[in-house]
Amino acid sequence: MKKRLYLFDTTLRDGAQTLGVDFSLEDKHLIAKRLDVLGIDYIEGGYPGANPVDTAFFEAPPKLNAKLVAFGMTKRAGRSTSNDPGFQQLLSAKADAVCLVAKSWDFHVDLQLGITLDENLDAIRASVAAVVERGRESIIDCEHFFDGYKANPDYALACAKAAYEAGARWVVLCDTNGGTLPHEIAKIVAAVTSVLPGDHIGIHAHNDTEQGVANSLAAVLSGACQIQGTLNGLGERCGNANLTSIIPTLLLKDDFAGAFETRVTPAALKTLTSVSRQFDELMNRQPNRHAPYVGESAFAHKGGIHASAVNKEPKSYEHVPPESVGNARKLLVSNQAGRSNILAELARIGMEVAKDDPRLAALLDDVKTREAQGYAYEAADASFELLARRALGEVPDYFDVDQFRVMVERRHNAKGELVTVSEAVVKVRIGDDVLMNAGEGNGPVHALDQALRKDLGAYQPSIQDLELVDFRVRILTGGTDAVTRVLIECREKSTGERWFTVGVSPNIVDASFEALLDSVNFKLLKDGVAAVARTESLVRFDGSAARRPVVERI
Amino acid sequence: MKKRLYLFDTTLRDGAQTLGVDFSLEDKHLIAKRLDVLGIDYIEGGYPGANPVDTAFFEAPPKLNAKLVAFGMTKRAGRSTSNDPGFQQLLSAKADAVCLVAKSWDFHVDLQLGITLDENLDAIRASVAAVVERGRESIIDCEHFFDGYKANPDYALACAKAAYEAGARWVVLCDTNGGTLPHEIAKIVAAVTSVLPGDHIGIHAHNDTEQGVANSLAAVLSGACQIQGTLNGLGERCGNANLTSIIPTLLLKDDFAGAFETRVTPAALKTLTSVSRQFDELMNRQPNRHAPYVGESAFAHKGGIHASAVNKEPKSYEHVPPESVGNARKLLVSNQAGRSNILAELARIGMEVAKDDPRLAALLDDVKTREAQGYAYEAADASFELLARRALGEVPDYFDVDQFRVMVERRHNAKGELVTVSEAVVKVRIGDDVLMNAGEGNGPVHALDQALRKDLGAYQPSIQDLELVDFRVRILTGGTDAVTRVLIECREKSTGERWFTVGVSPNIVDASFEALLDSVNFKLLKDGVAAVARTESLVRFDGSAARRPVVERI
Repeated sequence: MKKRLYLFDTTLRDGAQTLGVDFSLEDKHLIAKRLDVLGIDYIEGGYPGANPVDTAFFEAPPKLNAKLVAFGMTKRAGRSTSNDPGFQQLLSAKADAVCLVAKSWDFHVDLQLGITLDENLDAIRASVAAVVERGRESIIDCEHFFDGYKANPDYALACAKAAYEAGARWVVLCDTNGGTLPHEIAKIVAAVTSVLPGDHIGIHAHNDTEQGVANSLAAVLSGACQIQGTLNGLGERCGNANLTSIIPTLLLKDDFAGAFETRVTPAALKTLTSVSRQFDELMNRQPNRHAPYVGESAFAHKGGIHASAVNKEPKSYEHVPPESVGNARKLLVSNQAGRSNILAELARIGMEVAKDDPRLAALLDDVKTREAQGYAYEAADASFELLARRALGEVPDYFDVDQFRVMVERRHNAKGELVTVSEAVVKVRIGDDVLMNAGEGNGPVHALDQALRKDLGAYQPSIQDLELVDFRVRILTGGTDAVTRVLIECREKSTGERWFTVGVSPNIVDASFEALLDSVNFKLLKDGVAAVARTESLVRFDGSAARRPVVERI
Repeated sequence: MKKRLYLFDTTLRDGAQTLGVDFSLEDKHLIAKRLDVLGIDYIEGGYPGANPVDTAFFEAPPKLNAKLVAFGMTKRAGRSTSNDPGFQQLLSAKADAVCLVAKSWDFHVDLQLGITLDENLDAIRASVAAVVERGRESIIDCEHFFDGYKANPDYALACAKAAYEAGARWVVLCDTNGGTLPHEIAKIVAAVTSVLPGDHIGIHAHNDTEQGVANSLAAVLSGACQIQGTLNGLGERCGNANLTSIIPTLLLKDDFAGAFETRVTPAALKTLTSVSRQFDELMNRQPNRHAPYVGESAFAHKGGIHASAVNKEPKSYEHVPPESVGNARKLLVSNQAGRSNILAELARIGMEVAKDDPRLAALLDDVKTREAQGYAYEAADASFELLARRALGEVPDYFDVDQFRVMVERRHNAKGELVTVSEAVVKVRIGDDVLMNAGEGNGPVHALDQALRKDLGAYQPSIQDLELVDFRVRILTGGTDAVTRVLIECREKSTGERWFTVGVSPNIVDASFEALLDSVNFKLLKDGVAAVARTESLVRFDGSAARRPVVERI
């Protein structure tokens, strides 16, 4: 009989504390839904009342299978719960559970709250009772629990016990400063099981000694049944316990898989690599190549490992099968790895290709070369599809861009005010016609987009149905020799369907334009538009200046 | 009586396997000396015979207090040690110790070597004996030991015992695939102590489940006395056990510091942050801001922590004093922060301001307003300092930018090739002079940077010491009404010091330029450069065209 473990994700709350991280309302909805599909049990959506986005999130939360958790503090000292507006706001949030952070270190009760130890216990009890009375599940985060236990074990246990006895579903032991060691966690959690049952105990670890994962697992082996953490270990200082590393260990390592079960299925586990990378993309964060399980290099073999050996007996070199987490083996001496991945991806977009089709090898090479240059096809679904269909000769030659020019100028206008203007001119060849259009915008990319899509002749009905929704920029490698990768998100107005395209160049405008072109071509292909025929042929004259310049596809 | 723990660094050998890492001979000398000064006991310098750099390194090695280790393999099957040229080369290397990797998993003995289990044991004994006879210290790395033990515990133990009885100073248990869990490590290491003493046992862990550190420490608590790892956890796949995280834990956590001692002194520990960052610099790797102990954010406090509380009682929020590892506390200025945070941050940059100074309230307001617009001062330390010093009237008026223009053009050159060019022109007013400079670059931002910093008159000596290292773009909110935040990282060439500045605008070029200007002004301020004085005054004529336009600060 396996013990049920509950996964509690605090990416949207504790993770939000991280330097440089700002979740928009749309981000929160997207991430919450992904966590839900993954199999997370509790999703801590934020702190209603603390800032406008969190408040708005709890006013119209997403529909989830997981339990949505609102975070806040136990009632203010000296007030009743009904007299504490912040607390009341928490109770009115549209959440299934309310997680309150409570002091459990006597030192903090005195230093920060300035109340007595008993008053703190009362505050815990009253707060839990109020949550339970409002029909929400009550969770108490015992802040600084392990430091508190080391300083005054009786008091720390009293806090945990008070919460439990008042009706809390979970009492979460938090290693807030992150400095507790696994063997200490094991001992202390075991001690806590003497005052409340393990199936009501949670662990919230941080990574300040690089043992956030180990601390979480040690707590589970000592009886805790809830693990709090974040995607990709996001969090301030050194990060929160990394759920992206914890989940595969729970499902794939015998000592855990044999004794515990979660809401994460093996099928969902296979999406982990994708979930992890999409999260980094969304946050515009550099993915960690060396991330356990999901990193690009996690299963990259070098240094004398023979491809045949590892292919014959993967167990001899891999601690888990890469496919189990949606990752792939990389053999840096062969390219066998990529073929099956590409086939699977082609099947996914409805393209049936025979395994030994020579064009497949060419496509594989093309993808690898481009990825080495900085293209990322994992995120840019539409760009990949275009690349694949072009390799199979299925994409018409819609138009060519002869030339473009973008200008950003900051200057004074007639009133002496300093203004910035962005203008673009694009010259496009459709069939035998040359169209030249100008556009202006907030910035260079917007101006280019306006110019490109202002008038594409016969294609205009399709093009008008397209809108540029978002663009993300990532500078690869560093410094001024850097390569810029731009990801553009477009939306088909008539259907609401969205897709991503990618462009790569040392020049950010070039990269943006490449992604824009892909999106336009993708839309035309999707609509099944016929290409306008070219009647004149273009001939290249070697050496001397061409009579008409060769129009190269960007 | 404390137990002596030995630190064994394999950055230059196992770390060298990492994708993208290449140590030159100079790199090896530099790193070896730094490890020596830090207090490492064994420095594995490489694999003589495997490549020219490693061979050269052992022909003329650095003088160290630590023991220099040459790495290689046990003798080839079917040959004697004297008949194995690779092995002989190892013995002739100018090293104090020789570390040989040996099979200890029956499965590998069969699969890879194709010899019998007994032949493998003989190879181990003969190899160790040969090393000892040559007067070198013998170390045996038992490859895949933990998987080997799980598959065939008797055989794995037999391998370890054979090495020990033949005279090996150390038998190192390697978790080569990286998938063993801490509680398994603890159990297995304890079992090994029944066939050889703990003071001859080492642990070599990897980070494939994110528990490299925890595995190393678990082994120590079970009796092992040697820890192998690398600087900053460098290593293939997910990295080796991270000595940069292990060393502070050994010295600063009671359960370890009270029971064990190493060659690392508290004074040497204070250099750890510097050693870690210099290593990243040398390797041209992006430092991990969130690295435990040494990361820039490791002691960065945000989210409602009152500066007064942490300054009064650091233990309440910090698991170890940042200074003990040469790091520093950071109180982040954010829109959640209040007055005390700003005061503490000002004190950190050396600005003494009275708590009730009216300019402080104005500065706080300014920060909040700008943050609502998209500025992020947590990351942009130099922009914050500029803002603060301007609020206190301490920043001279170095120059004004009258105007700039950036153009990106994709067109055909004379050969008919499609090329993209980026050009910028910047008009700057310094004192009474107007300087107009052009620049070109990989992209619009690079071109602007070149133009701005090409010739700033009297300021040029300072400006030449500046280099643009990296820039990050973040699109806030979404779509084409988005606001772009650009973070620029600059580096002072003479000192290597780095800082960040921020710019915000709907226009990406504008935002980049704003961040560039901040960086230039910051450098001038830092160098204590005197502003070139303006003698003419500028007068604005209302309504009609100004005789000379008003120059507005961007």
